[in-house]
Amino acid sequence: MSTDDRPSYETQHHPLSWLALRADQRRAAGLRRTLVPRAADSALIDLAGNDYLGLTRHPEVVAATIEAVRRWGTGSTGSRLVTGTTELHAELEAELAAHAGTEAALVFSSGYLANLGVITALAGRGDLIVSDSLNHASLIDAARLSRARIAITPHSDVDAVAAALAGRAEERALVVVESLFSVDGDTAPLRELHEACRAHGAVLVVDEAHGFGVAGPEGRGAVFEAGLAGEPDVVVAATLSKALASQGGAVLGSAELIAHLVDAARSMIFDTGLAPAAAGAALAALRVIRRDPGLPETVRKRSWEIYELALELGLQVTAPSGAVTSIIMGAPEAAVAARDFCLERGLHVGCFRPPSVPDGKSRLRVTARADLSDFEAEQIRSVLSDLAAIPTQV
Amino acid sequence: MSTDDRPSYETQHHPLSWLALRADQRRAAGLRRTLVPRAADSALIDLAGNDYLGLTRHPEVVAATIEAVRRWGTGSTGSRLVTGTTELHAELEAELAAHAGTEAALVFSSGYLANLGVITALAGRGDLIVSDSLNHASLIDAARLSRARIAITPHSDVDAVAAALAGRAEERALVVVESLFSVDGDTAPLRELHEACRAHGAVLVVDEAHGFGVAGPEGRGAVFEAGLAGEPDVVVAATLSKALASQGGAVLGSAELIAHLVDAARSMIFDTGLAPAAAGAALAALRVIRRDPGLPETVRKRSWEIYELALELGLQVTAPSGAVTSIIMGAPEAAVAARDFCLERGLHVGCFRPPSVPDGKSRLRVTARADLSDFEAEQIRSVLSDLAAIPTQV
Repeated sequence: MSTDDRPSYETQHHPLSWLALRADQRRAAGLRRTLVPRAADSALIDLAGNDYLGLTRHPEVVAATIEAVRRWGTGSTGSRLVTGTTELHAELEAELAAHAGTEAALVFSSGYLANLGVITALAGRGDLIVSDSLNHASLIDAARLSRARIAITPHSDVDAVAAALAGRAEERALVVVESLFSVDGDTAPLRELHEACRAHGAVLVVDEAHGFGVAGPEGRGAVFEAGLAGEPDVVVAATLSKALASQGGAVLGSAELIAHLVDAARSMIFDTGLAPAAAGAALAALRVIRRDPGLPETVRKRSWEIYELALELGLQVTAPSGAVTSIIMGAPEAAVAARDFCLERGLHVGCFRPPSVPDGKSRLRVTARADLSDFEAEQIRSVLSDLAAIPTQV
Repeated sequence: MSTDDRPSYETQHHPLSWLALRADQRRAAGLRRTLVPRAADSALIDLAGNDYLGLTRHPEVVAATIEAVRRWGTGSTGSRLVTGTTELHAELEAELAAHAGTEAALVFSSGYLANLGVITALAGRGDLIVSDSLNHASLIDAARLSRARIAITPHSDVDAVAAALAGRAEERALVVVESLFSVDGDTAPLRELHEACRAHGAVLVVDEAHGFGVAGPEGRGAVFEAGLAGEPDVVVAATLSKALASQGGAVLGSAELIAHLVDAARSMIFDTGLAPAAAGAALAALRVIRRDPGLPETVRKRSWEIYELALELGLQVTAPSGAVTSIIMGAPEAAVAARDFCLERGLHVGCFRPPSVPDGKSRLRVTARADLSDFEAEQIRSVLSDLAAIPTQV
């Protein structure tokens, strides 16, 4: 949080009185957020969530989740190290690793915690972390928490990464990127980054939150597609809460790495294990993908259609590598107005404002789903056409 | 992680080769950990988990969880700010706040993330965090991540807390404690701590992970019992994964605080919302507790029986405020041997070694459950008696 714009202590009635002033400042800047509970029977077309393959309602995934609750209970009851590892967790980890092409996997209770766990277990004071400027908040927080020196490099700039590695005083270094960046939806130059890592003795850590289940053949991820799965100097993080229709995160890599995390990853050791329901859901979703490997391709195709439509309509839009397209609106107020415009016409799209995106880059974030119907695609075309026709649009 | 005992870079074959050496060092020190998947039909008596009220298998909790999956799907599909807030989440938050006696609540996907979120949203560079020496890893990590100055005070030492607050240069300060400490099972002197906070204009942040649903009248928590619920300068964190038989965490406090977290808590904004199954499980468990307010008292009584038994047997044991009793064994090997001794005789007890506990304080952690039968209590008596009779016990 910023400490600059707080009221002085003298004006306070109690030590949290400053919260009200901060709220006023956010309101004035158009940055106030509220939680809007959604109904189970909403008629909106969901283009805001990350249920990329549409599997959260898939009958087999629902049935497997219910079976997991019946068999294992409603909670995992403890840390993974104590009572929180069931046979279901072990089965999920084995199949995740097999799909990603790694030796082993370790499941965490969220993707955020997976990133915190792996990065703080691999880097500490006296090490270097080279971090892409558009990395997700969980990767930024993980790097901060590790106490390593952090070098932020311009987005997907391989030369800058190589220069940061070449010029370091530290023995050890991690290069940390997302495979598909969460907001712009573009892909990292993984092969080139790996070459730079190999040349300079660094480890490449790739967060596949938006890639696993979406990118690569059969949704095996962008790391697999780049031919890097199973390399000893590549570490993959993934989430179970997007393509895999569940909750939780995972780290995928060598058996030695996973054993190290079991010993050292604080966010796994000191956290309750993933609930059996979530483990069962992710495992079932993974099996659906393995049986129907066309699903990841379908969502990529749908996303590309939205991109081409927006381009054709003259909107300022980012090209999707996976399921995510961004329509840049500029000011936060413009993004909110555009979001509301779509909402009134039956489309639920995401609205990203600072600090999630840079100033002046507030946007609609439109995520495709593999289960969008042609009828829904037609509605999307109609609403985006109307949006593009509004003169105030940036 | 420690950076001192790593091999030099020259001896490495690839940049993660040091993991093998670290594993050898841990093995030699008796600190290697492994995940042991448990079976669904285990005949062991579980005294290791944190399912304090035994609600993870409660028919109503199981049924409500299944209903949540059917109604809402297997994942929340996005950030709480986008699509990850369902009406079920809102209902859970309202009932959690009502039970704790606060205006509002915010649910996170883990207790770890709740602690990270609230502390980094309330303290930053230029602030002070006064942190109890036995605080949980998630509170330690949260304080580190906040970049505030951290003053660690001896366990439950109110004078030291007051001195740290009185001597500070910073305007703002948080005092962070657990209500029931997770390993020794003792209670923080909440009333005295709050007086010190009030005298020095600080906020008291209390992690009720082991207190909510266990301590206080009807399991409303130790903060409620201390008469501090609803105070504007008291913030409560809780978990849904222990007494509430689910997964996830929550922050409870004023409406203004919760609104601030919605704007500022990175671990909520940038994380997928809690899965509907977990929200449904926690809500159902809370309703069971409200209808049967004797449950929290039952687990406290069972825990006290285990403590008195261990005391009578001459074991070195900590007095439980809630559900947790520790039997101190000393060296990690002694704790592991004692754990295995119990395991072979049908008792699953926790085994805590460094870094979870200080050196020389490795221990069995024995958690009671409200649903232990008299027959099971008799088995516990028999096994602990045999354990106490072994001469090698510390």
